[in-house]
Amino acid sequence: MKTIIIGGVAGGMSAATRLRRLDEAAEIVVFERGPYVSFANCGLPYYVGGIIEDRDSLLLQTPKSLAARFRLDVRVNEEVIQINRKAKTVRVSNVLDGTTTTESYDFLILAAGATTGLPLSGRGVPVRSLRTVDDVDAITAVLEDVGADARAVVVGAGFIGLEAVENLVARGVHVTLVQRGPRPLSPLDPEMAGPVLEALLDHGVDVHVNSTVVDVGASRVQLDDGSFIRTDLIIEARGVRPNSHLARSAGITVGATGGITVDEYQRTSDPSIYAVGDAVEKTDAIDGAATLVTMAGLANRHGRTAADAIAGIAEPSAPALGTAIVGLFGLTVAMVGWSETRLAAYGRPHRVVHTHPSSHAGYYPGAEQMSMKLLIDPETDAILGAQIVGGAGVDKRIDVIATAMTGGLTASQLSRLELAYAPQYGSAKDAVNMVGYVADNVATGSTQSIQWHEVDDAMGAGETLVDVRTADEFSRGAIPGAVSLPLDEIRARISELPDTPLVVHCQVGQRGHTAARLLTQLGRDVRNLDGGYRTWLAGMSATGTTATTNPSLAHA
Amino acid sequence: MKTIIIGGVAGGMSAATRLRRLDEAAEIVVFERGPYVSFANCGLPYYVGGIIEDRDSLLLQTPKSLAARFRLDVRVNEEVIQINRKAKTVRVSNVLDGTTTTESYDFLILAAGATTGLPLSGRGVPVRSLRTVDDVDAITAVLEDVGADARAVVVGAGFIGLEAVENLVARGVHVTLVQRGPRPLSPLDPEMAGPVLEALLDHGVDVHVNSTVVDVGASRVQLDDGSFIRTDLIIEARGVRPNSHLARSAGITVGATGGITVDEYQRTSDPSIYAVGDAVEKTDAIDGAATLVTMAGLANRHGRTAADAIAGIAEPSAPALGTAIVGLFGLTVAMVGWSETRLAAYGRPHRVVHTHPSSHAGYYPGAEQMSMKLLIDPETDAILGAQIVGGAGVDKRIDVIATAMTGGLTASQLSRLELAYAPQYGSAKDAVNMVGYVADNVATGSTQSIQWHEVDDAMGAGETLVDVRTADEFSRGAIPGAVSLPLDEIRARISELPDTPLVVHCQVGQRGHTAARLLTQLGRDVRNLDGGYRTWLAGMSATGTTATTNPSLAHA
Repeated sequence: MKTIIIGGVAGGMSAATRLRRLDEAAEIVVFERGPYVSFANCGLPYYVGGIIEDRDSLLLQTPKSLAARFRLDVRVNEEVIQINRKAKTVRVSNVLDGTTTTESYDFLILAAGATTGLPLSGRGVPVRSLRTVDDVDAITAVLEDVGADARAVVVGAGFIGLEAVENLVARGVHVTLVQRGPRPLSPLDPEMAGPVLEALLDHGVDVHVNSTVVDVGASRVQLDDGSFIRTDLIIEARGVRPNSHLARSAGITVGATGGITVDEYQRTSDPSIYAVGDAVEKTDAIDGAATLVTMAGLANRHGRTAADAIAGIAEPSAPALGTAIVGLFGLTVAMVGWSETRLAAYGRPHRVVHTHPSSHAGYYPGAEQMSMKLLIDPETDAILGAQIVGGAGVDKRIDVIATAMTGGLTASQLSRLELAYAPQYGSAKDAVNMVGYVADNVATGSTQSIQWHEVDDAMGAGETLVDVRTADEFSRGAIPGAVSLPLDEIRARISELPDTPLVVHCQVGQRGHTAARLLTQLGRDVRNLDGGYRTWLAGMSATGTTATTNPSLAHA
Repeated sequence: MKTIIIGGVAGGMSAATRLRRLDEAAEIVVFERGPYVSFANCGLPYYVGGIIEDRDSLLLQTPKSLAARFRLDVRVNEEVIQINRKAKTVRVSNVLDGTTTTESYDFLILAAGATTGLPLSGRGVPVRSLRTVDDVDAITAVLEDVGADARAVVVGAGFIGLEAVENLVARGVHVTLVQRGPRPLSPLDPEMAGPVLEALLDHGVDVHVNSTVVDVGASRVQLDDGSFIRTDLIIEARGVRPNSHLARSAGITVGATGGITVDEYQRTSDPSIYAVGDAVEKTDAIDGAATLVTMAGLANRHGRTAADAIAGIAEPSAPALGTAIVGLFGLTVAMVGWSETRLAAYGRPHRVVHTHPSSHAGYYPGAEQMSMKLLIDPETDAILGAQIVGGAGVDKRIDVIATAMTGGLTASQLSRLELAYAPQYGSAKDAVNMVGYVADNVATGSTQSIQWHEVDDAMGAGETLVDVRTADEFSRGAIPGAVSLPLDEIRARISELPDTPLVVHCQVGQRGHTAARLLTQLGRDVRNLDGGYRTWLAGMSATGTTATTNPSLAHA
């Protein structure tokens, strides 16, 4: 039995090695059009930044080492240019000399990954994406050539774009970031994205949002906002598109997303052909629809699934949650599932909870505050998504929530997780427990909450906004129109409050909850501002406008 | 409605504040026999060590602040000495002046915590536990008094004992640790505990295991092994026992564990009396039996449950997993569920998996290796327990596994968790995914594994032990009797292997798995040494003997 694998990085190589472990007799040929296989593609930006110093450490395996250990026939610089499904052969072109050969298969695994969108035409300025070893070699060559005062334009502020920015800055390069959308890292909801923009500006990065490159000249680019930017290098980090043209031209079904359609065993419309990695559609864990999620972890796992299927082991793939994380100048941004923006766009009902917990017990030195957002199905209490932005401990909390989602735990059940506690690691009520408690309070109606972008409307409708923080906190900055009534004085001074519905708020939402409970029991109609002043402020600063005019959240 | 709460720290105070938020009209009286309420008991050791510098930061609330915010009537230095269930009253003694009063209740919540075992008689040497603010005040007073060259004996090497040791060493105190059991941190299985002993010795701590204090003299203690140790202070950190005498003397049911028996709403045998925290029995998540788990997180959660029940909200407690963590000189040790030692003692069938993954991608600087152990039900593939020892990222992985257990995920399903990956945070196949893959390989029979303590028997029975690491690794240290055949040479040199059943091993188990798969398919009877040379070595060094003579694992 002979299996051909097209693509020798994450998904393809996982499939190859798994298949060998399952079947010592199998013939396994891997074609990789680039010169390297099994390289650490997620490490490439950090080699550019000098954080990873040894280039060889990026090259995890070589054709030789793979032959020795796994008896794989790995052929680099060989691009498969045609699939003949009837004959069960592929036509292969040698990238270096243009010679072509034909190779037969019993099974074929497509793992050709994805590439960035339409290339910018680079008249003079080198344009590179950041997906291959060749890319980083070219980028570092340009930067070494230019020397001091090098300048780069990064186009696209997604995960790779931000990693590129961080690492270019680490090398002393002056960076301009150009983002088509309204903010960097568009999967984040606006009120969560503030720290990302701040981190960029704090590190001297020029940021252009709602902006695209319209022209690339000699040593400069022009943006559609009219700006001209001198640059030595352009990093192309716009969204990737699946390399599905080979499959499509062979008559294999490609979905509306542009990704190859596969079943839960990674099988394409041709039962002899499997596909894995960034080139294929995944099944979204939230709505079950076909979606593109370009993550190394999924690629590896699906490579294994395809190998299992070929070897006769039926182990179906799980739907994709899209858990993701990125580091940026000490900030960690992580997410799982859907954002509020996406839920709203799809018209899917949802409930929102914001918290601002500490990474560990506040009395133990070094605790860092993070901002957490949980999206919840109001009918089932299912967790639809989460976003966390902060420093230490963000990665832990997103993984716990992703695991809870996989285990089918509800938002309220997060409060009951028994997480490891000592004061340097967490809190007796951990950040994840706390967001679960808040979700439970909202679900049971113990607290009525109001979101940051609804405050204006509420006040316009005559509700009174009551700031229950201390007088001192109030004096350092408050929501326009709020009246100050510190929590500990409410019982004594309740008669001072006007006889309207009330919106209470504190700094992060916790004292506001206590105030709301108290006022409710004293007979008042009251809602607590979810996430408190901090979330409100983040929302205002991110949208640069009042929330009610923010179209992406208008019907949230 | 009037509720009296006995005990004003974790569980008691959670109950009090939750009850207030639910019922503004309730009368709530808290009696605390100590001078402080709501203090950071888990932070106390770190104040001794000077890591937490500000004593006030340990005092989270005061009776005054609790009165202002939650309208609680908190009475410190007041000890409840008797419960009259018929009259629904308690008799209270003032600790300072001995006067007694009587207070009536509608509901009573017992939250008096636990104390250490029978006190050591301290003729001359001060003996303190580490559970109250008074304790740390006394300890620091002694240490300041003695000045340089202070010496301390810590009795008990559990969580609090190790935290005490670390912090005394941080202050420059010379510490002797006396442990009744065969190793420090006895909830850890022996082959996982090696790094704990090493960390202690590396930091100059003298460790006596299988040892007890038989006499306390003026400025010295005597152990049952005959040693005399000069000391200025004894820290009593032996296992705690529930403060259930008050309940018992009132005729409330106390279980065989010594903890107060409660139902899932934290209600005792008297329907007007609830109990929470270290004084009560929990329901063990693994076997459903009554057990003692003295964790702050559970105390807080159960305090809320009791308040809910009193306020008419039926929100049952979940069974306890016993997730726990401790830091020791940069080492992190975490666990959840049952150990192998406990499973074996209870005769419960189990499967064992050891791995030694990196905290994040190996090519990104700063990755730290951890050791992970997973205990699995061989029938259902349910996760029965986990232990992780290492540095960075240990806390994250134990929390993910604890969450998976709560969500009912099987060991194999850990491989499918979609955890957040960028190279500074994890691996494309995260440590938790990998242990799931290994579990899956064992569950499906893809790998037959053998445990470190079974190697001797296998070799005695004529099996051949094959070390598949490189010749270089082999030369640096190997299992006695092993033959060297590097993985990449197996295909060429298989004829050199004797015609016996084989046990293969590598450094951590991964290459061994590949070798076992290869040899199985080449027709050989082969098992892979779980966790590789590293686990074997840890087991040998921890037991100080061959494993087959280790009684705790003899029938594992």
